[in-house]
Amino acid sequence: MSVGDVSKRILLGRKLRSSQLGETLLPKRIALPVFASDALSSVAYAPDEVFIMLAVAGASTYVWSWKIGLAVAVVMLTVIASYRQTVHAYPSGGGDYEVATVNLGRNAGVTVASALLVDYVLTVAVSISSASQYAAGAIPPLIGHEATVGVVAVAALMAMNLRGVRESGAFFAVPTYLFMVAILGMCVYGLLRLLSGDLPDAESADLQIVPQPGWEEPLTQIGLMFLLARAFSSGCAALTGVEAISNGVPAFRKPKSRNAATTLLLLGLIAITMMMSVIVLAKQMTIRYVDPHHLEQLRTSSGAVPEGYEQHPVISQIAAGVFDHFSPGFYFVVTVTGIILVLAANTAFNGFPVLGSILAQDGLAPRSLGSRGDRLAYSNGIVFLAAMSMLLIWVFDAETTKLIQLYIVGVFVSFNLSQLGMIRHWTRHLRTERDPAVRRRMMRSRAINTFGLGMTAVVLVIVLITKFLAGAWITIIAMGVFFAVMQAIGRHYARVELELAADEQDKVMPTRVHAIVLASRLHKPTLRALAFARATRPNVLEAIYVSIDPRATNRLLEEWDERHLDIPLKVLHSPYREVVRPIVEYTQEIRRASPRGVVAVYIPEYVVGRWWEQLLHNQTALRLKGRLLFTPGVMVISVPYQLRSSQVAQERGRLDDTRVHAGDLRRGRVGNRETGRQVDDA
Amino acid sequence: MSVGDVSKRILLGRKLRSSQLGETLLPKRIALPVFASDALSSVAYAPDEVFIMLAVAGASTYVWSWKIGLAVAVVMLTVIASYRQTVHAYPSGGGDYEVATVNLGRNAGVTVASALLVDYVLTVAVSISSASQYAAGAIPPLIGHEATVGVVAVAALMAMNLRGVRESGAFFAVPTYLFMVAILGMCVYGLLRLLSGDLPDAESADLQIVPQPGWEEPLTQIGLMFLLARAFSSGCAALTGVEAISNGVPAFRKPKSRNAATTLLLLGLIAITMMMSVIVLAKQMTIRYVDPHHLEQLRTSSGAVPEGYEQHPVISQIAAGVFDHFSPGFYFVVTVTGIILVLAANTAFNGFPVLGSILAQDGLAPRSLGSRGDRLAYSNGIVFLAAMSMLLIWVFDAETTKLIQLYIVGVFVSFNLSQLGMIRHWTRHLRTERDPAVRRRMMRSRAINTFGLGMTAVVLVIVLITKFLAGAWITIIAMGVFFAVMQAIGRHYARVELELAADEQDKVMPTRVHAIVLASRLHKPTLRALAFARATRPNVLEAIYVSIDPRATNRLLEEWDERHLDIPLKVLHSPYREVVRPIVEYTQEIRRASPRGVVAVYIPEYVVGRWWEQLLHNQTALRLKGRLLFTPGVMVISVPYQLRSSQVAQERGRLDDTRVHAGDLRRGRVGNRETGRQVDDA
Repeated sequence: MSVGDVSKRILLGRKLRSSQLGETLLPKRIALPVFASDALSSVAYAPDEVFIMLAVAGASTYVWSWKIGLAVAVVMLTVIASYRQTVHAYPSGGGDYEVATVNLGRNAGVTVASALLVDYVLTVAVSISSASQYAAGAIPPLIGHEATVGVVAVAALMAMNLRGVRESGAFFAVPTYLFMVAILGMCVYGLLRLLSGDLPDAESADLQIVPQPGWEEPLTQIGLMFLLARAFSSGCAALTGVEAISNGVPAFRKPKSRNAATTLLLLGLIAITMMMSVIVLAKQMTIRYVDPHHLEQLRTSSGAVPEGYEQHPVISQIAAGVFDHFSPGFYFVVTVTGIILVLAANTAFNGFPVLGSILAQDGLAPRSLGSRGDRLAYSNGIVFLAAMSMLLIWVFDAETTKLIQLYIVGVFVSFNLSQLGMIRHWTRHLRTERDPAVRRRMMRSRAINTFGLGMTAVVLVIVLITKFLAGAWITIIAMGVFFAVMQAIGRHYARVELELAADEQDKVMPTRVHAIVLASRLHKPTLRALAFARATRPNVLEAIYVSIDPRATNRLLEEWDERHLDIPLKVLHSPYREVVRPIVEYTQEIRRASPRGVVAVYIPEYVVGRWWEQLLHNQTALRLKGRLLFTPGVMVISVPYQLRSSQVAQERGRLDDTRVHAGDLRRGRVGNRETGRQVDDA
Repeated sequence: MSVGDVSKRILLGRKLRSSQLGETLLPKRIALPVFASDALSSVAYAPDEVFIMLAVAGASTYVWSWKIGLAVAVVMLTVIASYRQTVHAYPSGGGDYEVATVNLGRNAGVTVASALLVDYVLTVAVSISSASQYAAGAIPPLIGHEATVGVVAVAALMAMNLRGVRESGAFFAVPTYLFMVAILGMCVYGLLRLLSGDLPDAESADLQIVPQPGWEEPLTQIGLMFLLARAFSSGCAALTGVEAISNGVPAFRKPKSRNAATTLLLLGLIAITMMMSVIVLAKQMTIRYVDPHHLEQLRTSSGAVPEGYEQHPVISQIAAGVFDHFSPGFYFVVTVTGIILVLAANTAFNGFPVLGSILAQDGLAPRSLGSRGDRLAYSNGIVFLAAMSMLLIWVFDAETTKLIQLYIVGVFVSFNLSQLGMIRHWTRHLRTERDPAVRRRMMRSRAINTFGLGMTAVVLVIVLITKFLAGAWITIIAMGVFFAVMQAIGRHYARVELELAADEQDKVMPTRVHAIVLASRLHKPTLRALAFARATRPNVLEAIYVSIDPRATNRLLEEWDERHLDIPLKVLHSPYREVVRPIVEYTQEIRRASPRGVVAVYIPEYVVGRWWEQLLHNQTALRLKGRLLFTPGVMVISVPYQLRSSQVAQERGRLDDTRVHAGDLRRGRVGNRETGRQVDDA
C-alpha cells in the first residue's frame, strides 16, 4: 500500500462488502430507470439549445421550434427502432462496439470505442454543467460560480465511484421516476392551464430578441436552412444515451432481448413526450432564450436588459410560470432535474470501466482491466474520466451551450458505424437463412437499419457542417488520440503473442535444479526459506551471503555452525557494498557452468502490513528480483514470512476483493460474492 | 521503471560507467581540497555577518571586528585540535556520530545525526544564497532575483548528483586552490598597497551608519556584551565544515589518520589566515556593511542612501578596491568565490548519502540505504535535501544574514557531544592502559578534548542565547523531528528482530510440496513454468486456470489436449471475472488439507523492457503475488520469460549497478568496479 492509498482511504472511507448487494437481475420497471437517466436528462438542456440557436435570427424563428422538436423525435424513433434490432442480434452487451467489430472489422470497432470514450467524458461535462446552471437558478449565490460548482460535483462523483457505491435499483428508480413525474406533471398542469386560458407568460416573455448582425430579417433561404440545421443538430443532444440499453442486455431478466427492446421503446416514447411537451409549453409561454454570450440581443421595452441579467433554463422558466402560485412545485421540478443530471453523469462513471473491460478482453486496453478487481487500473480510469471532464468544465466555464458543440459527433459516429454493421449482419445471415418467416423478419430488420443509417448519416453530416469549427474538431482530435493509443496497444499485444507462440522445444525439462537461498541473517524467514528449498529436493542446495562487513559475516558464520545447519553457506565478498550485482553474477556463473539446468533463487521475505514498514523492508529483495528476472534460466522464489502486522494488510486485501465496482449493476454482476454463488434469474 | 524514471532519464542524461573513475586513494594535496571547500567557503560570508552584527550600534563598534575574528580563530584552533584526536581514535570515518554513539550511547548518536542532517540542509541553503549574492554583485540584472538564482542553482546541483558526477580530485582541487590563490593573493596585494600607503577606501567608506533605535551610544556594558556575543556567534559560521575530514579518514592514503590530522591542521591554518586577512583589510578600507533589511541605517553626507542602493559582499568590495585599476582581478575573485560556494553546497550532497548509509547500518534509517546502489532510496535522499534547501532559500529570500541564524546550532550540538564522547573515550582507555608513554599521550588528548568541550559549550550557549528567537528554534524543531523519526525506525527494526529470532522448530521441513502452475494461455512462458516446476519434482503438480470466459476456456482445454501435456489442468470458475481471489482461496484449501505441506505457486511472467510495456503486462501477476505473500505456507515462484525488448532494461540495469554515486570519492570508494577489483593504496 502506497502513501496515496492511505490518503485515499481517509478520503473515501471504508469499503463496502459486496454481500450487501442486491441479488437479482433487473425487471423492466427497474431496468428502465437504471439505463434511462442519461437519455431522459437531455430534456433538461436540449430544448434550451434549440431556442438559443433559433434566437440568433430573432424570436420570429421560434415558430420552427416544435417542428425541429418533431424532427429530433423522428430521428430518435428511427435510432430506437434500429437499436431494437441490435439488442436482439447482440444480446451479449457489447453494443455498438461489438456490432462494428464483428461486422466491419477491428478499425471500425476501435473507431466506435474512441467515440464512446470521448462521449463518456462529454456526458459528464455537459450533464454537470447543466446541473450547475439549474443549481445557480435555484440558489442565487451560486451565480457566477457555475464552473466551481461543476468541478466540485465531478470530484464528489469521482470519490463516490472510487469508493464503490452500492447501486441498488432504488438508487436509480426513485430520482428517475420522480423526474418523469415532475416534468410530465408540470407539462400536464401547464397544458390544462393553457386550455383553461390562464397559463401565465414566462418571465422572459416581455423581452425582445434583436437578431445577431448578419441574421436580420428577411433571412435568405440558405441562411434559414443553416439556422434550422444548427438548431436541429443541437436538439439531437436529446439522443445521447439511448444506446446505453444495448450495452446492458445481460442485466435484464429473461427473455433478456425482448425485455431490453421493450424498455428501449418505452424510454424513447417517454423522452419524446417530455421533450415535445417542454418545447410546446415554452413556445406557448413565449419564452425568450439567447446564447448567454449574446445577452445584448435581449431588449426590454425601455432598452437593454439590466447589467447582470441572468437567464434561467427553459424548464426553470416553465416551472416558475406554471407553478406561479405554488413555489414548492417550482423547487421540486428544479431539484429533481438537477438530480437526474448528476445521475446521468454517474452513468458515464459506470459505463467507462465496463467499456474498458471489453476493450481489454480484445487486447485494445491493458489486459488487467479485463479481470475484475484491478483496483489500480480501474481507479485510474475513473480518475482519468473525472480529470478530463473537470478540465472541460473549467475551460468552457460550465457553459452547456459551448460544450454541446463538442457532443453528439461521437454519438453519431458510433450510430452510423453500428447501423452499417447491422446491415452487414443481416445481409450475411440472409445468405444462409432459408426459413421464409425468419428471412422476412431479417429483411424487415435490415430495412429498418438501412433507413436508420440514412437518417443518422444525414444527421452526422449536418452536425459536422454546423459544429466543426464551433468545437467538434476537439472531439475529432480526441477520438484520433484514443484511436492511435488503442491501435498501438493492440499491435503490441499481437507482437508479443507472436513472440510467445509455443513450439515443441519449450517442453524440454531442465536437467538439474541448482537452488540458492539468500541469507541476510539467520532468522525465522531464512530458516523457513532453507526448509522450503530443501523440501523441493534440488540437485544442489546452498545458502548465499553477500558480505559487506567482516564483523557481521563472522557473526553469521558462527551462528551457522552453532545451529548445525547441514546446508553449505557460501560467502560472496562485495568490497563496494553492492548486494544485487554479486548475486546476479553468481547465478550467471552457475548457469554458464550448466546451461541446461535452472537456478532457483530463494528469497526470504518478511511480510509487513503498513506502507511505511514496506519502505523499511524488502527493498533490496525487490531490486534483486527485478534484476534476476532479466537473467535467463533463473526462477525467483519468494518465501514469505508473515509478521504480526501483516494481518492489517491481509484484511485490507480481503475487503478489496469483495468491494463493489461502479457499473456492476448494469453488467448484471449482482450476486452474493461472499459465497461465490451467482443467483440466477428465476 | 516508472513514468517518473523516464522523465528522470531525459533530464539527467545517460549514466556514467564507473570504470571511468579514478583508481587511487587521496594524497594530502588532493584530500585537502576535497574536504576543504565547505570550511573555506565560509570566509565568503562569515566576515560580512560580523560587520553586520556590529553595525547595529554604528560604525564605531567596528574596532571590535578583528578581535572577534581572533576569538573565532581561537575557537577554530581548539576545535581542530580536538578533531585531530578524533581522527586518530576513530579512523573508520564514522566521525561525530560514531564517537557519540560509542561513548555516550544511542540517544546521543541519534542527536548528533539529527544535527548533521539539519546542517547538511543549511549548508546548501547558506552557501547557495551567498553564491547568488556574489552572482548578483557581478551581474547587475540578477539583483532582486537572488532567490530564483539560488533555487535554480540547487536544482542544477540536484540534477548533477542524481546523475552521478565523476568526482576526480581535480574537480575539487582546481577551484579550491584557485580560491586560495584569489583570496590570499588579493589580501597580500592589498596589504602591500596598505604599506605603500595607496590602498583605496572601499566603495561604502563614505557612508555613515546610524545606530538602530535602542543601540545609540553610549552602549551599556550588557548591551555591548550582547552585541559582541552576537557578532561572535555569527562569525562562528566559519567553523562549519571542519568536521568533514573526520568522516573521510578512509579515503586518505596511509598512514590514514596521520595524513588526515595533518590535512586538518593545514585546513584550519589556511581558513584562519584567509578570514583574518579579509577582516583586517575590510577594516582598513573602512568598509560599511549593514543588515540588508536596515539599509535606512546608511547615510550619505547629503542624507539617506538613494533608493535601490545595493550593498556588495565584503570580499566584492575589497576586490573592487584593491583591484581598482585591474578589473579582471575583481572578476576573478568574485567568480572563484561563487564557485567555491557552490562546491561547498555540493559537499552536502555528497555527505548526506554517506551519513544515510551509516545510519542504515545501525538500523536508524531504511536498511536498503546501507548497501550500495539502492537508487531509489539514494535518489530520494538527494531530492529531499534539495527540496528542503530550496524551501529555505525561497522562504528566506536567499538572505544569508537570516539563514545564518539557523545555522551553527547543529554544528555546535555535534561538536559538544563529540568532545564529551572523546573525553569518555580517553577515560575508558586510561582505565586499562598501563604504558606510561601512551598514558601521557592519552592524558594530553583528554586535556585537549576537555578544553575543547569547555570552549564549544560556551559557544553553544552564546549561540542559543543570541540566535534562538532569530531562527535557531526552527533548527531545533527540525532536529527533534529527525530524532523522533530515527528513533521510531530503530524501535521498529528492534521489534521485528525480536519477532524474527529463530528457534529450533523453524528448521522443520515441510512434508510435501504441492506445486500449482498458473496458466493464462498456452504459450512459451507457461510451458517454461511447467517444465521448471516439473524439474523440482513436487509431490503434486497441477496447472490452474481461472475461467472468466467459457470460449477461452474451451480453447485452452483443447490446446492442452493437443499438446499431450501430462500435467493435469484444473479450471477454477470465476463468474465475476475475479482472478486473484479464486487462486488465493484454492491455495488456502490445499494448505488446510495438508497443514504441514507447502504450496508452491509458479507464475509465468514475461519480462519486457519499457515502462509502458510493464503497464500492459504482469499486472495481475503482481497483484496475485502481493496477495499470496500474506497466505501462510505458500511460496511464490516467478518463472520469467525474457522478451526481446527486455534487453533494453537489462542494459539499463547493468549501467545502474556500475554508476557513480555522489560521495564515493570521500568514502574512499574509488576503484575499478568493472572487474570487481579494489585497487589498494600502495
